[in-house]
Amino acid sequence: MATDAQEACFEAGIKFGSLYHQFAGTPVSPSSARSLEAAMAESIENQPFCESVTVEIRDDRVADAIDHENGYTELTGSLMDVEMRIEREGVAVRTRMAMRDGYPLMEVVSVADD
Amino acid sequence: MATDAQEACFEAGIKFGSLYHQFAGTPVSPSSARSLEAAMAESIENQPFCESVTVEIRDDRVADAIDHENGYTELTGSLMDVEMRIEREGVAVRTRMAMRDGYPLMEVVSVADD
Amino acid sequence: MATDAQEACFEAGIKFGSLYHQFAGTPVSPSSARSLEAAMAESIENQPFCESVTVEIRDDRVADAIDHENGYTELTGSLMDVEMRIEREGVAVRTRMAMRDGYPLMEVVSVADD
Amino acid sequence: MATDAQEACFEAGIKFGSLYHQFAGTPVSPSSARSLEAAMAESIENQPFCESVTVEIRDDRVADAIDHENGYTELTGSLMDVEMRIEREGVAVRTRMAMRDGYPLMEVVSVADD
Repeated sequence: MATDAQEACFEAGIKFGSLYHQFAGTPVSPSSARSLEAAMAESIENQPFCESVTVEIRDDRVADAIDHENGYTELTGSLMDVEMRIEREGVAVRTRMAMRDGYPLMEVVSVADD
Repeated sequence: MATDAQEACFEAGIKFGSLYHQFAGTPVSPSSARSLEAAMAESIENQPFCESVTVEIRDDRVADAIDHENGYTELTGSLMDVEMRIEREGVAVRTRMAMRDGYPLMEVVSVADD
Repeated sequence: MATDAQEACFEAGIKFGSLYHQFAGTPVSPSSARSLEAAMAESIENQPFCESVTVEIRDDRVADAIDHENGYTELTGSLMDVEMRIEREGVAVRTRMAMRDGYPLMEVVSVADD
Repeated sequence: MATDAQEACFEAGIKFGSLYHQFAGTPVSPSSARSLEAAMAESIENQPFCESVTVEIRDDRVADAIDHENGYTELTGSLMDVEMRIEREGVAVRTRMAMRDGYPLMEVVSVADD
């Protein structure tokens, strides 16, 4: 019904929604950001067709978001940059999450056949 | 870069990954399944391009999954049927989650231009 | 090892952490807030020793938190008031989440033996 | 209203519920288990009064739970052992999650004043 490229884009979207809603709300500070980045990337890479995930939690934004005495905040999309590469049936899809007008937007960067 | 149909499929995937990983692990019993179905559908329908979501938590499967004294289990993909309709730039995408070989599979049902 | 009252307070804490981290990040708008309140309360009431949960998502705060075109925000502690009653071995514990200095604080309201 | 020991037990419960419901449902395999253990421990250690958290995801149980072609499963309480140490106002609380009759039970191990 759907083309291979459309299916690959569907898979790419699943990974992004999964990553975001599994980990949003996790307590995070600059000192715990590295282990969270690694866990997010490696856990989502388990999913089918997911070739690579890179997560960069931005310590400067985390520091700005800490507004109380406890020294941590909760993970949201505005605190991180994410890039993913999905590959399915010879179609590679690159996606990323980037800030657009103050809102973290998930977007398709490229769709390429072999 | 991506076609409108590919973008619509990406958006459809985001909604599915979001729904699954936001709510997986929620305590559920037959008596609380109706409110959870409603909350899952209405919360995901807030997301951009998401026209409709239907979630059916299968009470028979919930009952089978309750294996301890406490009378509840945790929500997983195998306990529910989900259908979604995404629409973006005139492209409508229908998706569903269905059991395939004992594993809940998210799939594209149709992609249709206006 | 622990007293009945201490055990009851431990159970009360579990319910609060569960509720918060299961549902934080859920897309929410004034029109979807009622179903989310019901699902949160009913799902956590499934847990052992949990007599009652009330969740009030504050529409005024949700409206203030919506800062982009899409018409929704993500659930955080600052958007809701929560009260719970736990009962275990004749000890009743009342807890609530309330805003304190701009930070949502979970607190024990009372611990009472039969 | 509550004693210092009761408050410490409440805090201990919050951490357990948080850890469980933040991370339940995360895709996990033996190769990604180490980074997930680290992220779980370090993120929850950010929370107030949380002195230490150790998470051991049991690779043998993960391997047994992988029942499909994709090579991963979703994190549940039965796949891990957790220990925590909470300290508040001079009261130290030790807690753990252990399997009891096939069900992962969170429990207080000890409550000790200075």
